[in-house]
Amino acid sequence: MAKPIHSMIRVLDEGRAVAFYSAAMGLETVDRYPFDSFTLVYMRDPASTFELELTINHDRTQPYDLGDGYGHLAVAVDDLDAARARMEAAGGAPGPIRELQRDGALLGRFFFIKDPDGYSIEVLQRHGRFG
Amino acid sequence: MAKPIHSMIRVLDEGRAVAFYSAAMGLETVDRYPFDSFTLVYMRDPASTFELELTINHDRTQPYDLGDGYGHLAVAVDDLDAARARMEAAGGAPGPIRELQRDGALLGRFFFIKDPDGYSIEVLQRHGRFG
Repeated sequence: MAKPIHSMIRVLDEGRAVAFYSAAMGLETVDRYPFDSFTLVYMRDPASTFELELTINHDRTQPYDLGDGYGHLAVAVDDLDAARARMEAAGGAPGPIRELQRDGALLGRFFFIKDPDGYSIEVLQRHGRFG
Repeated sequence: MAKPIHSMIRVLDEGRAVAFYSAAMGLETVDRYPFDSFTLVYMRDPASTFELELTINHDRTQPYDLGDGYGHLAVAVDDLDAARARMEAAGGAPGPIRELQRDGALLGRFFFIKDPDGYSIEVLQRHGRFG
């Protein structure tokens, strides 16, 4: 039994990242631990115990190299169109809404948005297996 | 409300990745969708609805560039020492158990292990805020 509890990403500017995940994604900061060389920030959605852990390395000045391996964190919402409008109003730049079909049925309806450091987030309509 | 539902990573060899997350991490494959150019595999722990989504791009032959931005997926276990022994027995190479102190108290007891593609996983003893 290995219960997933958080996903960690390194971000360059704490205030910028927290503002995005708060205003656009609706996450709340539940803990913040400053250490000498780094700070850890834990954010979560009220509907879940799974957290986003932000690591801010104090001496880092160059943007992180995101590579091409890590994909995204996915979140499910009740109303995809409303979520997209809210993220746009919060200053985010969500992509177009797309649909993935499988065997003639809708598997997923979703869009992607990037956080200020460039990490992708997939926002899915709560539907079928994505709930 | 944007409930986290999965984390997606791209992996080179489906069988190798699934074997690791199954044998070492105890996750179960709950869905597998082969498409023309890629396959999606969803794995989860019985204790959680949060899933790991593996993307296998069929024409990819080069290892993915993991960069230095994405950190890890963290999981909580009841018995850290037993989990570490189990992962070692399953052929994994877990790092040493470490402790992070904060204000004179134990914040977290954990080790890291890498999956076959090099992604880090943090395994935490269920304790305090990490549960």
